[in-house]
Amino acid sequence: MAVEPIAWQGDRLRLLDQTLLPAREVYLEAMDHRQVAEAIGSLRVRGAPLIGIAAAYGLVLASLRLPRGDMARFLAGLEEAARELASTRPTAVNLAWALERLLGRARACASPTEAVAALEAEARALHLEQVEADHRLAELGASLLPQGGAVLTHCNTGSLATGGMGTALGMLRAAWRQGRIVRVYATETRPLLQGARLTAWELWREGVPCTLIVDGAAGALMARGQVAAVVVGADRIARNGDVANKVGTYTLAVLARAHGIPFYVAAPTSTIDPATPDGDGIPIEERPADEVRCLAGVPVAPSGVDVSNYAFDVTPAAYVDAIVTERGIARPPYAESLASLLSGGSAND
Amino acid sequence: MAVEPIAWQGDRLRLLDQTLLPAREVYLEAMDHRQVAEAIGSLRVRGAPLIGIAAAYGLVLASLRLPRGDMARFLAGLEEAARELASTRPTAVNLAWALERLLGRARACASPTEAVAALEAEARALHLEQVEADHRLAELGASLLPQGGAVLTHCNTGSLATGGMGTALGMLRAAWRQGRIVRVYATETRPLLQGARLTAWELWREGVPCTLIVDGAAGALMARGQVAAVVVGADRIARNGDVANKVGTYTLAVLARAHGIPFYVAAPTSTIDPATPDGDGIPIEERPADEVRCLAGVPVAPSGVDVSNYAFDVTPAAYVDAIVTERGIARPPYAESLASLLSGGSAND
Repeated sequence: MAVEPIAWQGDRLRLLDQTLLPAREVYLEAMDHRQVAEAIGSLRVRGAPLIGIAAAYGLVLASLRLPRGDMARFLAGLEEAARELASTRPTAVNLAWALERLLGRARACASPTEAVAALEAEARALHLEQVEADHRLAELGASLLPQGGAVLTHCNTGSLATGGMGTALGMLRAAWRQGRIVRVYATETRPLLQGARLTAWELWREGVPCTLIVDGAAGALMARGQVAAVVVGADRIARNGDVANKVGTYTLAVLARAHGIPFYVAAPTSTIDPATPDGDGIPIEERPADEVRCLAGVPVAPSGVDVSNYAFDVTPAAYVDAIVTERGIARPPYAESLASLLSGGSAND
Repeated sequence: MAVEPIAWQGDRLRLLDQTLLPAREVYLEAMDHRQVAEAIGSLRVRGAPLIGIAAAYGLVLASLRLPRGDMARFLAGLEEAARELASTRPTAVNLAWALERLLGRARACASPTEAVAALEAEARALHLEQVEADHRLAELGASLLPQGGAVLTHCNTGSLATGGMGTALGMLRAAWRQGRIVRVYATETRPLLQGARLTAWELWREGVPCTLIVDGAAGALMARGQVAAVVVGADRIARNGDVANKVGTYTLAVLARAHGIPFYVAAPTSTIDPATPDGDGIPIEERPADEVRCLAGVPVAPSGVDVSNYAFDVTPAAYVDAIVTERGIARPPYAESLASLLSGGSAND
């Protein structure tokens, strides 16, 4: 029953089209980097860690088609493909991180032929590392969760978002298998319903008790004492611990604080961006108005109505009780604890 | 361009089917109280004040069909019809309030024929009073709103909810006409999208600048300083000022408090229930899971997934900066200020 949202097949990339879930499980095969860019831009492939992996393989696909006569021209072509892949979505830093890592590997090679082989090896390594990171993160994070409680999560941070066992959802899966938590509350996550379509589907396939709620119901659920912790993923974490994640995350953080409920962020270290000092520096993607005006292709609002549709919001570090990564659990002050994790030092928790 | 969601036509009740908006403007004609009950239960007619008016006319329709030979049997038949109408939705107190008022009027009559005429007159009077109440409430409430700001509202509290100019939305319309506010932010209000389908539609028809957001985006909007006040309606206000309203209202109240933004409730005094001491005593309607699992008839979640779908939540009085009624503006402590309004005393503001 395991779902495989991404699979490298030597000369092509197989991708699960997540826009069609849960009604249909359709896979597409990308033969070049433009098809990968289209799949990322249209959210067929989504989730910060997964789009990093997809972009890495996209660059491998680009490398396979470049002329190998001249190294400088090869690298210029590769950089052009990387720019196209990077321009698809602005918020998740994993995308730029993965591309930069592969470009660095290629630049260290002596010839295009050597670089093509090195790029494929590097993309496979990055993919494997992210899958392994999920496991370590899940085991570390599960220990944070209160015994016997139910946990609220937002959007989708499962296998579909990472290619591994997931970040926030991976923590919840691990905690459920350990008998530590009894239920997951999943917000449906408007506008694109990743909670309803993807998280509920993943948990339901796996038999983890899951209750779906509309986003607005989170406050009342907490007021009734039904939420022991909130765990979410991240698309980018600034140097000071401010967290950009799916729109609605900040609302949940404020609610959690008002109810004395711990609020945890789970993300691989590839999501931490030391080049961005704080949340003000994180670009927030604004997406088409029709994502809100229409639902499942059906208009639900007057066609001319103005819409504000930021896909992400920023939760200030002060609302975040811990950031769980594959290298350890960071606690405030994050400027120090995150820097320590990134430099390979031991976690502060 | 004025919309008339309810119209008494002597022997039948014309109702706008709000479930089909904004795509189609379809009216139905109820010939008996069961059709009215069906229209209320299925949300073709919704909004606490409007369902009070609809129920009143429903009881008139019932009275027209009852045998007039015996007063006791007439009253028994009327009470049976009132029970059917009252059982459609548990949270809005306006429903029970309107039915109780009409039953009292009938009981004071000497004969069924006299009662039939009295019931029709009473329903018309109640309807007219509610329309007039909207106007007074709107004028009073508009004065609360900060000059030059944008105001966030939730669900639909406009003409479609009251038959008049609306409660919270009436306030916003009045304030916009006065040049006091510059824009309305409307939450889409999942699961039934009354904000997108009805509020955005009403404001768009009237030319009031309106921006639609998903419910989860309210926090980020406030954090960006774009919201000067939050104004919502109510389905029942307890004696102590606790407010039951559309699910998501409490979330907005917590967010408003965290951002230092005033949070106002607008409702006619018929929404105040002195028989309910506090929010714990307000029955909260739980509606079908498929309202969340499906969207516009399209499944968006696994069909078997568990759903929690409470249609309302309770906002404690401590989060409410003022309650605006047609008789005046109540301020904390509400136990005193609401009692004063209900007893016909002057408002405390």
